[in-house]
Amino acid sequence: MKLYLAPGACSLSEHIALLEAGLPFERVIVDLRSKRTQDGRDYNEVNPKGYVPALVLDDGQTLTENVAILDWIADRCPRLAPTGELAHSRMLEMLAFISTEIHKQFVRVFFPTGDPEKQAALQKIGQRLAYIADRLKGDYLLGGDMTVADAYLYVMLRWAQAKGCALPPPLPEYKARMERRESVKSALAHESGGKA
Amino acid sequence: MKLYLAPGACSLSEHIALLEAGLPFERVIVDLRSKRTQDGRDYNEVNPKGYVPALVLDDGQTLTENVAILDWIADRCPRLAPTGELAHSRMLEMLAFISTEIHKQFVRVFFPTGDPEKQAALQKIGQRLAYIADRLKGDYLLGGDMTVADAYLYVMLRWAQAKGCALPPPLPEYKARMERRESVKSALAHESGGKA
Repeated sequence: MKLYLAPGACSLSEHIALLEAGLPFERVIVDLRSKRTQDGRDYNEVNPKGYVPALVLDDGQTLTENVAILDWIADRCPRLAPTGELAHSRMLEMLAFISTEIHKQFVRVFFPTGDPEKQAALQKIGQRLAYIADRLKGDYLLGGDMTVADAYLYVMLRWAQAKGCALPPPLPEYKARMERRESVKSALAHESGGKA
Repeated sequence: MKLYLAPGACSLSEHIALLEAGLPFERVIVDLRSKRTQDGRDYNEVNPKGYVPALVLDDGQTLTENVAILDWIADRCPRLAPTGELAHSRMLEMLAFISTEIHKQFVRVFFPTGDPEKQAALQKIGQRLAYIADRLKGDYLLGGDMTVADAYLYVMLRWAQAKGCALPPPLPEYKARMERRESVKSALAHESGGKA
């Protein structure tokens, strides 16, 4: 199994989730500007959408989109999925909220058509983080145990801090809790050291 | 079961999917500006996120987010989910692509901070529709039978046409095929007639 990633990009979510799951995988770095992979391929041949992540399974099939890949990982490691009533729907609801309401707003912050767009996106991100902060009751997003949704939210909180967004309580403690996990330490070390 | 919807909004996807599934449900119209529901409630009490759709289940639980609600409907009506290898992941991959890459771009078209943002979003929508058009091999998005992903894409194609985006072939035929379905006719009649 190969995870195509760009250091610090949203693919860090799958990087963390795969480490948590203990699934064996190879990392392949993608240069998103040149669309070349670390092993010299044209990334558009791997994923014609041109963005990360892509997960190439052992049978050669390629899976894309954060929501779909994180769900696939949780399916193979039920410890990373919530339990209880409507559990799968609640996990998808949270993954969908993070991807559409937070992640896509950050695209407008990173690549805005102008400052008004960037400011509008930052304001929306602030509202969405407040929504999550108000509802974070346990140690993790969907209860007392980490799920794949936390891997995704964690990356969003890193981006928020990098862009100067204040994290409403208890999100700073939540982020620190995530950073004490071996999976997060390992993924960050790989991605920052160019060893990804 | 109650579906909270705004006529013509993305909740039309769930409206169509619930009719296809033959699940009994009640429609409640939401005025998104005033945040009041047709039956006089504050919609923020139903869905604190303030947007549609929301599906209130018979046991009183509320489910939000298009991806999660459409997946929930497909789970109750397997005819509306694809079959074969990686079927559930392929469905989520498509729902995630539609929600993040098409639907969220339309938000920038409907509520832009300026014309450059609107034009950038329209260009991206054109690219994403071309991606889908290039891969549409059967009558429907994920094969020969309609799935919940088609209900979602159909709404995006309506929006595209309303905003003057050309639909690359075979998307015009695909849209016409959807419009011949009783579920689509019925949902549109309800929403346009104020009977939703």
